[in-house]
Amino acid sequence: MSERYDIAIVGSGPAGISAALNAKIRNKSFIIFGNDELSNKLVKANEINNYLGFHGKSGKEIQQAFINHLRAMDIKITEEKINNIYAMGDYFALMVNDKTYEATSVILATGIQYGKLFPGEEKLLGKGVGYCATCDAPLYRNKVVTIIAYSKKEEEEANFIATLASKVYYVPMYKEFVNVHSSIEVVNDTPVEIIGEDKVEKLVLKNKEITTDGLFILRDSISPGQLVPGLKIVDNHVEVDRLMQTNLKGCFAAGDIVGRPYQYIKSAGEGNVAALSAVSYVDSKEK
Amino acid sequence: MSERYDIAIVGSGPAGISAALNAKIRNKSFIIFGNDELSNKLVKANEINNYLGFHGKSGKEIQQAFINHLRAMDIKITEEKINNIYAMGDYFALMVNDKTYEATSVILATGIQYGKLFPGEEKLLGKGVGYCATCDAPLYRNKVVTIIAYSKKEEEEANFIATLASKVYYVPMYKEFVNVHSSIEVVNDTPVEIIGEDKVEKLVLKNKEITTDGLFILRDSISPGQLVPGLKIVDNHVEVDRLMQTNLKGCFAAGDIVGRPYQYIKSAGEGNVAALSAVSYVDSKEK
Repeated sequence: MSERYDIAIVGSGPAGISAALNAKIRNKSFIIFGNDELSNKLVKANEINNYLGFHGKSGKEIQQAFINHLRAMDIKITEEKINNIYAMGDYFALMVNDKTYEATSVILATGIQYGKLFPGEEKLLGKGVGYCATCDAPLYRNKVVTIIAYSKKEEEEANFIATLASKVYYVPMYKEFVNVHSSIEVVNDTPVEIIGEDKVEKLVLKNKEITTDGLFILRDSISPGQLVPGLKIVDNHVEVDRLMQTNLKGCFAAGDIVGRPYQYIKSAGEGNVAALSAVSYVDSKEK
Repeated sequence: MSERYDIAIVGSGPAGISAALNAKIRNKSFIIFGNDELSNKLVKANEINNYLGFHGKSGKEIQQAFINHLRAMDIKITEEKINNIYAMGDYFALMVNDKTYEATSVILATGIQYGKLFPGEEKLLGKGVGYCATCDAPLYRNKVVTIIAYSKKEEEEANFIATLASKVYYVPMYKEFVNVHSSIEVVNDTPVEIIGEDKVEKLVLKNKEITTDGLFILRDSISPGQLVPGLKIVDNHVEVDRLMQTNLKGCFAAGDIVGRPYQYIKSAGEGNVAALSAVSYVDSKEK
């Protein structure tokens, strides 16, 4: 059986890493999922003047201060993408392709960088449309699979599917050079709509249509409602109270995901609060 | 007539100064009341590790980073103590002894460092008990006035009252050397209760009682409900929504004053949000 963490933090922007500092200080076992670059948005910021304590610094310089802070406290980020989080009653199961992590509490800090849904996506989710190609691969042995990929990282997943499927179409939504197995057909076109009744039938793009058995949409992050089934969403944001508690017991959220304004220090402050709330929750379960 | 500011910020801890940065960046006219030391609590903190971006720094070092930030943005703190804030409909009136400031919106960030009320204090407030000696001084010409002072700064106020009152008792609640006019009787004792029916009659201390016409309690800060009449308080904290709006339109609050956890970065994040909310409010009034 896998280790059960006290706290699993999903996201490595200011909210997630601020939560991690507090989990560490409070001596809880925790894991934080994200990437070593922390946050795309932060890195790209020009000059930030309203993060109290830093003046006239670029996003890159503040990123470096955050990285130094994590290093000084020996906090490492686990570079894996969580596909789904299930509330299991006593704990949460976090699914990463073929792996499962367990945690008593969860802090959602994935930001708001998820794309809009395609027409037909919601209706056909689980009916041929999915977000984790590796998870569902066995279902598509000798079938046609289409992958819409938002990041070069997904090429690996496409190559794996190509070993099973009879045909793989790969629609890259990123600008970097595409380098996939020669059996994969790269489609440089813009997806418009997903068609199907009880099951996905085809993907309509601007200039062509692809008839397909399975369709995987591999975004950098998925919307919180899809990430955590049962989570209460209001106006596209996770609803929380002032202690950053969501409607699911033991599940907290912080940062852009819970609403405007989208500000670094607001996110960091909320990450702090969410972590302390998670600590209290974990302590209350141990009694 | 005095200038009317867009935003008045009361308090110079992390919430107040974070709000000030954002008011400045958004080009609003504003004034921030507090003191150049920023926050007593911050200065006294040993080592702070959960303010994202700073590791292993003392409260004093973080204070210095905050002071540098304010200086770089040319933000000055007005060292005056607000006694009362009145919602006037279109604007707020902030009372400082004999002066009045006006602002379209207010951000309350005074923290939670107000003492407990003395028994009898609330009942006799305005009936001989007050918080601003200078304001009410004319009422006590040739009468007996007692001052309970929590800070050495109040000695000046006592000296002023002594020029009008027939007798001044001065109860210092601080440890520094007391240096007041020779006509003032310094009482080194601990206040226990305020007695009176329709009007204050006497102050009971541990070892003696003082019969008095007026009683001024000069704390570093007063409770938010007394500071702003009509403000909704729940469990000793100012009630706010996620945009830091209180029940009074145009009045926002941030930091420890709105509730636990009492954390620097939570306060700074809330100050940011409160300022942006105040900016929106001011903009909406100008349309």
